[in-house]
Amino acid sequence: MSKLWSPLVHTLEPYVPGEQPKMERLVKLNTNENPLPPSPAVQAAIAAAVQSGLQLYPDPESSALRETIAKYHGLSMAEVFVGNGSDEVLAHAYQAFFRQGKPLLYPAISYSFYPVYCGLFEVEPHTVPLNEQLEIDLRDYRIPNGGIIFPNPNAPTGQLIPLAEIEALLADNTDSVVLVDEAYIDFGGASAAVLVPKYPNLLVVQTLSKSRSLAGLRVGFALGQKHLIDALVRVKDSFNSYPLDRLAQAGAQAAFEDEAYFQAARTAVITERARLTEALQELGFEVLPSAANFVFARHPAHAGAALAQSLREQGIIVRHFAKPENIAAFMRITVGTPEQTDALLAGLRELGL
Amino acid sequence: MSKLWSPLVHTLEPYVPGEQPKMERLVKLNTNENPLPPSPAVQAAIAAAVQSGLQLYPDPESSALRETIAKYHGLSMAEVFVGNGSDEVLAHAYQAFFRQGKPLLYPAISYSFYPVYCGLFEVEPHTVPLNEQLEIDLRDYRIPNGGIIFPNPNAPTGQLIPLAEIEALLADNTDSVVLVDEAYIDFGGASAAVLVPKYPNLLVVQTLSKSRSLAGLRVGFALGQKHLIDALVRVKDSFNSYPLDRLAQAGAQAAFEDEAYFQAARTAVITERARLTEALQELGFEVLPSAANFVFARHPAHAGAALAQSLREQGIIVRHFAKPENIAAFMRITVGTPEQTDALLAGLRELGL
Repeated sequence: MSKLWSPLVHTLEPYVPGEQPKMERLVKLNTNENPLPPSPAVQAAIAAAVQSGLQLYPDPESSALRETIAKYHGLSMAEVFVGNGSDEVLAHAYQAFFRQGKPLLYPAISYSFYPVYCGLFEVEPHTVPLNEQLEIDLRDYRIPNGGIIFPNPNAPTGQLIPLAEIEALLADNTDSVVLVDEAYIDFGGASAAVLVPKYPNLLVVQTLSKSRSLAGLRVGFALGQKHLIDALVRVKDSFNSYPLDRLAQAGAQAAFEDEAYFQAARTAVITERARLTEALQELGFEVLPSAANFVFARHPAHAGAALAQSLREQGIIVRHFAKPENIAAFMRITVGTPEQTDALLAGLRELGL
Repeated sequence: MSKLWSPLVHTLEPYVPGEQPKMERLVKLNTNENPLPPSPAVQAAIAAAVQSGLQLYPDPESSALRETIAKYHGLSMAEVFVGNGSDEVLAHAYQAFFRQGKPLLYPAISYSFYPVYCGLFEVEPHTVPLNEQLEIDLRDYRIPNGGIIFPNPNAPTGQLIPLAEIEALLADNTDSVVLVDEAYIDFGGASAAVLVPKYPNLLVVQTLSKSRSLAGLRVGFALGQKHLIDALVRVKDSFNSYPLDRLAQAGAQAAFEDEAYFQAARTAVITERARLTEALQELGFEVLPSAANFVFARHPAHAGAALAQSLREQGIIVRHFAKPENIAAFMRITVGTPEQTDALLAGLRELGL
């Protein structure tokens, strides 16, 4: 605390990212990273970009990358915005759309950065409870609002909302932006990107951190009609003209161009998720149906916090959320390699499960 | 414009970065990039980092890089903050320190991003005129304020403020943060970093874009006492936990570790600046004394806009500011390679100078 701080800084409750432990030889299943490296084409593109003049500024508009993403999603470049990770894209979206003097709606159990942005950008939050199955029920969002944001699939539960339910919400809620945060959509869901041409208030946000194995490169993007992208560009150009460095632009583009690798990698995660789910169920866990690269599981006889701590002592890191109370029994476990799954299961058996 | 935008977005006047033309074979002297590539150690460090697991998140705290910068400046890691280019660091500083309900002071002719941040973060600006020699006179800043920011050397004039004058301001102005923006300090000035241990309200911001030839990698940093860095971290962790990707962290660290290359590169720029200045003076230009990697020059017989346009037609790009009026006669010319200087001089002679 310091008298030199802006008053708002005293009130912030910053986000706490999943731990990045510096220990060696961990079974790291706590931050939903992809167990596979990115496509070899990404490494080649970065190697070329290193030689392309790092002393020169990058393209401030990331045109080549945006063109590639646009083509991939059947949209125009004017309908694509890119940022330094999807967190930056979300932050800009809060400034661009959600400072309305009316509350922003989001699920009571969801990505824990949403309330943090509310604090930073002075947006009034209104959390909507999940239903008893810990699902998002979009019928509960038909109330006055200055914006709606939710992940699909939701985190940390992994549960998917069918596209038809999102479209029904969009048809009904036309006066504020509906932001669908699709960080995990490639692991089993249908993207709302196809609805962009039809709904002027839809913004879809995705990341290359998960399904494209590029958490270490920091690239995310938004898809929406041009008038929404224009607002994001206005905020970005009032904040940082060059959010993506030369290497990130080149690497991200290469990732989108290697469709075969992408399909093989996400299929591997989906296959392993099925095996992990079944094995956990055999050990007595209740596992929520997941469309993401993680599962959310609880055991009737073991508290989530204690299990996570015991696994940690064996060098196996999963994520546990102490709050809110109705998810404290769960662990969020990233889908790793088959070897990591085996190590996790062995670790659980070691604990007598 | 759209009814879906936050009201503030309508009022923004975004920054316009120097043009990054896509034409080949330009003599590009418009955005103050370094004519030399970064140290070969940077490329090697990036090549190693590409293999280090791009599927994993980077260190959210950039600890190794901050440790390296701290050691370089004789400070502790807790006194160093890093961001995605110094523009992001400046943006966070506005939120962290300058939202005080009192005006922020900055030079009337200066980095044109300063008023843009005022718009984004709703900070009241108060511009202080330069003196008749187009210098910043810090005695003019002894007025009530909620913060003070200025570049040293100033941009686009290139003129340097002696450290003793900055210290005198700090001794006098103790109730608000004084931010010294040292983007160009390595080309001939004394950094205020040495004053950090003595003044609790001093924040020094630097970039790797200029003197370390890494405009394409996007790394900037702030030096200040821990209580100031803590405020920046609170803002950063409420905005984007992972602002620097793995490659940027590794490359920036390597740049700081190759001191011999750094010294040789900045000496080359300083030497070439002297030759460029003298040659322009021989052509009749008035050249302001520059401590940066650019010069600010005007010709008594030729308007700045017309000269810049004529050079452009020859494939030589310099920067011209139409406003404010008292600098419209000038061109801002980046110090390039000896070959680029020769091309510029030939281009000017072509115009009859």
